[in-house]
Amino acid sequence: MKIGKDISAQILIEALPYIQKFNNKIIVIKYGGNAMVDERLKMAVMRDMVLLNIVGIKVVLVHGGGPEIDQMMKKLSLESRFINGLRYTDDDTAEVVQMVLAGKVNKQLVSLIQQNGGKGIGLCGTDGDILQVQKLEAEEDLGFVGNITGVNTQPITMALDNGYIPIIATVGTDEKGQIYNINADTAAAEIAGALKAEKLITMTDIVGLLREKSDEESLITNVDIFEIPQLIEEGIIMGGMIPKVESCVEAILQGVREAVIIDGRMEHAILIELFSNEGIGTLFYKN
Amino acid sequence: MKIGKDISAQILIEALPYIQKFNNKIIVIKYGGNAMVDERLKMAVMRDMVLLNIVGIKVVLVHGGGPEIDQMMKKLSLESRFINGLRYTDDDTAEVVQMVLAGKVNKQLVSLIQQNGGKGIGLCGTDGDILQVQKLEAEEDLGFVGNITGVNTQPITMALDNGYIPIIATVGTDEKGQIYNINADTAAAEIAGALKAEKLITMTDIVGLLREKSDEESLITNVDIFEIPQLIEEGIIMGGMIPKVESCVEAILQGVREAVIIDGRMEHAILIELFSNEGIGTLFYKN
Amino acid sequence: MKIGKDISAQILIEALPYIQKFNNKIIVIKYGGNAMVDERLKMAVMRDMVLLNIVGIKVVLVHGGGPEIDQMMKKLSLESRFINGLRYTDDDTAEVVQMVLAGKVNKQLVSLIQQNGGKGIGLCGTDGDILQVQKLEAEEDLGFVGNITGVNTQPITMALDNGYIPIIATVGTDEKGQIYNINADTAAAEIAGALKAEKLITMTDIVGLLREKSDEESLITNVDIFEIPQLIEEGIIMGGMIPKVESCVEAILQGVREAVIIDGRMEHAILIELFSNEGIGTLFYKN
Amino acid sequence: MKIGKDISAQILIEALPYIQKFNNKIIVIKYGGNAMVDERLKMAVMRDMVLLNIVGIKVVLVHGGGPEIDQMMKKLSLESRFINGLRYTDDDTAEVVQMVLAGKVNKQLVSLIQQNGGKGIGLCGTDGDILQVQKLEAEEDLGFVGNITGVNTQPITMALDNGYIPIIATVGTDEKGQIYNINADTAAAEIAGALKAEKLITMTDIVGLLREKSDEESLITNVDIFEIPQLIEEGIIMGGMIPKVESCVEAILQGVREAVIIDGRMEHAILIELFSNEGIGTLFYKN
Amino acid sequence: MKIGKDISAQILIEALPYIQKFNNKIIVIKYGGNAMVDERLKMAVMRDMVLLNIVGIKVVLVHGGGPEIDQMMKKLSLESRFINGLRYTDDDTAEVVQMVLAGKVNKQLVSLIQQNGGKGIGLCGTDGDILQVQKLEAEEDLGFVGNITGVNTQPITMALDNGYIPIIATVGTDEKGQIYNINADTAAAEIAGALKAEKLITMTDIVGLLREKSDEESLITNVDIFEIPQLIEEGIIMGGMIPKVESCVEAILQGVREAVIIDGRMEHAILIELFSNEGIGTLFYKN
Amino acid sequence: MKIGKDISAQILIEALPYIQKFNNKIIVIKYGGNAMVDERLKMAVMRDMVLLNIVGIKVVLVHGGGPEIDQMMKKLSLESRFINGLRYTDDDTAEVVQMVLAGKVNKQLVSLIQQNGGKGIGLCGTDGDILQVQKLEAEEDLGFVGNITGVNTQPITMALDNGYIPIIATVGTDEKGQIYNINADTAAAEIAGALKAEKLITMTDIVGLLREKSDEESLITNVDIFEIPQLIEEGIIMGGMIPKVESCVEAILQGVREAVIIDGRMEHAILIELFSNEGIGTLFYKN
Repeated sequence: MKIGKDISAQILIEALPYIQKFNNKIIVIKYGGNAMVDERLKMAVMRDMVLLNIVGIKVVLVHGGGPEIDQMMKKLSLESRFINGLRYTDDDTAEVVQMVLAGKVNKQLVSLIQQNGGKGIGLCGTDGDILQVQKLEAEEDLGFVGNITGVNTQPITMALDNGYIPIIATVGTDEKGQIYNINADTAAAEIAGALKAEKLITMTDIVGLLREKSDEESLITNVDIFEIPQLIEEGIIMGGMIPKVESCVEAILQGVREAVIIDGRMEHAILIELFSNEGIGTLFYKN
Repeated sequence: MKIGKDISAQILIEALPYIQKFNNKIIVIKYGGNAMVDERLKMAVMRDMVLLNIVGIKVVLVHGGGPEIDQMMKKLSLESRFINGLRYTDDDTAEVVQMVLAGKVNKQLVSLIQQNGGKGIGLCGTDGDILQVQKLEAEEDLGFVGNITGVNTQPITMALDNGYIPIIATVGTDEKGQIYNINADTAAAEIAGALKAEKLITMTDIVGLLREKSDEESLITNVDIFEIPQLIEEGIIMGGMIPKVESCVEAILQGVREAVIIDGRMEHAILIELFSNEGIGTLFYKN
Repeated sequence: MKIGKDISAQILIEALPYIQKFNNKIIVIKYGGNAMVDERLKMAVMRDMVLLNIVGIKVVLVHGGGPEIDQMMKKLSLESRFINGLRYTDDDTAEVVQMVLAGKVNKQLVSLIQQNGGKGIGLCGTDGDILQVQKLEAEEDLGFVGNITGVNTQPITMALDNGYIPIIATVGTDEKGQIYNINADTAAAEIAGALKAEKLITMTDIVGLLREKSDEESLITNVDIFEIPQLIEEGIIMGGMIPKVESCVEAILQGVREAVIIDGRMEHAILIELFSNEGIGTLFYKN
Repeated sequence: MKIGKDISAQILIEALPYIQKFNNKIIVIKYGGNAMVDERLKMAVMRDMVLLNIVGIKVVLVHGGGPEIDQMMKKLSLESRFINGLRYTDDDTAEVVQMVLAGKVNKQLVSLIQQNGGKGIGLCGTDGDILQVQKLEAEEDLGFVGNITGVNTQPITMALDNGYIPIIATVGTDEKGQIYNINADTAAAEIAGALKAEKLITMTDIVGLLREKSDEESLITNVDIFEIPQLIEEGIIMGGMIPKVESCVEAILQGVREAVIIDGRMEHAILIELFSNEGIGTLFYKN
Repeated sequence: MKIGKDISAQILIEALPYIQKFNNKIIVIKYGGNAMVDERLKMAVMRDMVLLNIVGIKVVLVHGGGPEIDQMMKKLSLESRFINGLRYTDDDTAEVVQMVLAGKVNKQLVSLIQQNGGKGIGLCGTDGDILQVQKLEAEEDLGFVGNITGVNTQPITMALDNGYIPIIATVGTDEKGQIYNINADTAAAEIAGALKAEKLITMTDIVGLLREKSDEESLITNVDIFEIPQLIEEGIIMGGMIPKVESCVEAILQGVREAVIIDGRMEHAILIELFSNEGIGTLFYKN
Repeated sequence: MKIGKDISAQILIEALPYIQKFNNKIIVIKYGGNAMVDERLKMAVMRDMVLLNIVGIKVVLVHGGGPEIDQMMKKLSLESRFINGLRYTDDDTAEVVQMVLAGKVNKQLVSLIQQNGGKGIGLCGTDGDILQVQKLEAEEDLGFVGNITGVNTQPITMALDNGYIPIIATVGTDEKGQIYNINADTAAAEIAGALKAEKLITMTDIVGLLREKSDEESLITNVDIFEIPQLIEEGIIMGGMIPKVESCVEAILQGVREAVIIDGRMEHAILIELFSNEGIGTLFYKN
């Protein structure tokens, strides 16, 4: 299909109220899942970031990078061990996590931002003490998995105020220099909360919450956070979705206006979410 | 035709490099012709202004308002007299011009900006002494038609720096309070020059310069200003186009990077000009 | 009488404590009545404005322009209709009001400011959405007479902070573009209140409140606002004075320190009010 | 003579163009002679300073204090010795000069400024290294009389930018801590030059340069600095006037627009000089 | 003893945590006693000031100058009279106090700052109305001894923000120009309180509070201010120490974090106090 | 040896002139060699950085990390290949270099800065496009070794102006996202040049240039850059020293005031170099 220039202009104009709505607001994006694996999607996400940035929306990207860590672990003949879906992080693993997230994934994303004419700055939790961490106390010991005890937003707002897109890898160090692996959903939520962001967008590999499993037509578009316990009980929120939803709730309780879980497998999902009336995925809010 | 949300997003992304190109640059728009008469076009132009403003492009709109002046002259039983296509401006006419341009047309445009969620400030040449004028000396006396002897850009940049879209009516007063009617093409060019604008866009009711009269396929898309005398000689630039082109040249000589004459009858002509590779109309530049 | 240079200097020095008192404070002046008709008084008021501005007092002038509207209505063969002294404003009238106030009166005042070496910016309620209006609900329908529902002070303070004298015509538009005529006393009071001005000065054609009608010696110089109901009951405040006094009260209730009604027929009445111990006219305050 | 309030206002208005002319400009005043001895004149000068400051003129006062030094020398049984009218300054004398100028005269002036509602800061050449000095090499040794080798304007402009009137005593120290007595005319000229002041006003005890000695009607009101050698030759500039005039010339050569010698015995001489067309005294300029 | 460069570097590094602790904090130093008499100590104190200033600590020095006043009184054949250890200040004495403190002592200190490469500004209570004073009401009349009724910190913070070290002589004037002698301990405490300083350091000629008189080993290093009455009762705080300690308490009650009395006879006592864990002297704090 | 507190203070005071000399100046440190391997030295360097930062010196640290790369190459069973001492960088190697430098070494240094109470930000050439690179053209192909074609200092000065110590890993990407290994000596020189640094300090494992090999007494302390060809000819500069010295020259030619090669094996070598008269190592300058 060939789109005429007049229709293009029309579409730009239709984006106007959405641009106005989010102008000068902070949007935190938890980047992950398929959108981080597929090269084409990756490029599309970075382009979305650059576009949002240039139209005056302050975007912050927070990322983990499980698959890349796994791969490097394998190359280094280190064993990846998981406890309840969470990576057990011994000293060697912590080093690999830091190296891969902050040195490989993070810098590649910054490079993609730059390739699209944007200005990116790659940081991790250690830089400027963005994420203050302690050992996460869990029923079963997870090793050096970090619990965020504080967020220093100053390096992030410094970057935003100077026109940079901050790209943040979720790894940090404590005051003794011990490296900690940090859950990216939690980190994004804490960062969004500390920044009093307008929106937290979590990219996943599902369409959203479905009332009927595998019927995409049954998508639940809006959820007041007080309904969540009921949805968990009904099994509509389950498994790996539970902590993701809990991060959304946490962010909202800390002052983020709304949080949304979107399908990162769709090209330009972020733009579609922000620049259409209905948005996509499942939106969480608090009345 | 219904456009899917994914295609809309795609189109937004395609606008990215153009937004980047003009980001934080000043664009002066000479508003006039049909685009100022047709209500639908008027609304479209104001929306374009608001969109450009919100994506970080500094737009300044300069307008006259011939038809509205004629109408008010008629209502007041005053005779409109033209000499070589220029309005002869006696004292009564000067008052009507000021009242209609600064009080009616200007404020309506500001209101339209506001209706589209933008922030507009309506000014005329008198405000903050934006346009310093003297009586234009012409072969045949034109009455109180002003010759611009200086531009004070401070009120304009003050408005731009505070996020407002300045809407400027081309009427001014001299140091004794005498009102002068000022040619809007000239005023736009002088303002663009004084602001060292990136681009001057003049809205007209023609497609652009045509090599073969009435063959729109023969549109001349780019003209180096040194070629203009030749084009006048060949009759390709003629009649009312000559002063418009001369204003473009004047602006370029004063430091504006390029000037373009576009077809204001096309909806969103400004957006299409700025946000496509080829642009529209005829572009003037200096090598 | 010839005043020696030494006495002139002495008088300047006597103004010092008053200049110090109002330095950097905001004074809102409701301009109207005879002072707006007589050319000599007009020039004197504008000079006062320029003087106050240069000695560091932030003056804002708010004006209507009844006589000029009447005159233009007549020229356009439109009938002026009044209900309880308020102009009934149909669509045609609203357009005339806007055109005359914002395009003729306003710009002439700006020009006078400039002729006296000051820097003026002419605005109306529509510019930067200074006055947000709705239809005024009255017992008898007044047509498009506006009720102020909000004031955006940002364009005013932007002008003040950049050294400009803001001249504001009391006409505005609603979010659909409908033009509204706005009572100038009310507008001045609302603007003064929103700016938390130090003083609201209302120019009238009377000496002030008189205890004995037509005995200027019986001038009441100070009124605590709680005494006003009593003064109305006694007929000392009556007729057209009542809404003017009510505007003063409104301003004071919104945080203006004091409001004064002065005799605009006296040359330099504003200077005399501000720069003498007793001031002139009747001052309203709240204990 | 009783002046009506309306005439007072008129006089204020007449000052307007002069206030505009000097607005935001720097005026350096060399304070001395009778105006520094007579208590009434002293108060008048300080009031002039405060008035000028509040109407937006940046005044800097530079002072010596010969009589007070003499008096203290006597009290301390120290001998005052003069060589060609210049005080011979031994170590003890230097200490007395510093103490009297910076500790007595200076602080009294600051106090007077404050008593009139102004904000004063008393400094001397040592503070912030305003005056860099070396021993003045003269034919006959003058002891610790300082030659200004540099001026640091930063403390002065810091005070001005924060709304303070800087009062500067003309005593300084070299990099070893040796105190130097500095000629106040020279110091005022150097400070005015370094500040690129608009005007240097030197207060004296004469009406100005007279063509016929003792005929005040023969006052020379304007002198182009190239005429000065001729006037010296004719004996019109003579004795103690010669170095004062030379300081004026020095200031003008360093970029001060004009320098004027006024009669400090006249109350409010500074105001009269600045706020009237003809000014008073003798003005030096360079074509 | 010769210190190797490596050990020097080591010592610098050991100062790091202390520099970090006081970075950008305000420290007020009451300068007095022997440290103000001995030339070598004087130079050392000024060097400490310059060092603290350059490493980003905001130091303010407050000084009296008893011995220099006595000396000048004697030279002027004026009698020094003391009541309960406080100088009786008649008119002549007040003038001498001002002249000596603000003109001699103060400027010498500024000169010493400058000789060590620092930037000093010498002020007294009169400058910018830093110290607002009234006559101190005491049982026995003390003459013109001032009671501080207000502190204007603006000139001090202006100096600090521009990189200057403010040196403040404790003499002031009331609104009629009467000079007052002000107790330096009190002045330092009030200034520290108004500035919400981090620390007030009072230089004395004793080691600190001793539990056993004349046994320096019995030094009391820390005192909670609630313990003070007990210490006075026990005679551990006695005589001239009582008002000094009371000034410390006053400062703490006004918001200063801690106050310390140090031995000014020790070279670099200020540095040692600030840059070592134990500090020196006796520290007062409030739990 | 035990150093008394008084001697410590003395040493601090001796550092004063050096702190003053470099206050607010930019110092670029090329970190490498033994100082980057030995944990104790590493900690000492980071402490020096924090100290310099807190006393107002703007330090920028630039680092490579050869040994860590070798180690990771080995762990990943990749072969390290060198051509004339330069690492041949194929695609796999480039990825390892980036990951190790930007993800491991860089973040560890930032963490050490933080552990010492400083504020660090870890960046690489890709962030904010600090280092613009192309393939280095060499006689023998070196693979993806980058040639710096431009430096964007904005992210560095942004960090410095906000009080952060920028730590920069010398790896970058071109506009297509290709990773390049960049020589750290060259990168430090280019960064120092672009920042117009006061000094470039290159840490090495030698004492400096020796006139007699292995006689440390024959250290050459100062070299004018025009003498360098002669020193190369004489074999005094040889082998791996040649490119290091050439980087120093390059920096000086781009406007760095001086460049010095110091012995990083000495603890606190940076402090000793900056804070002593003779400094250490060999200093290069241009007359």
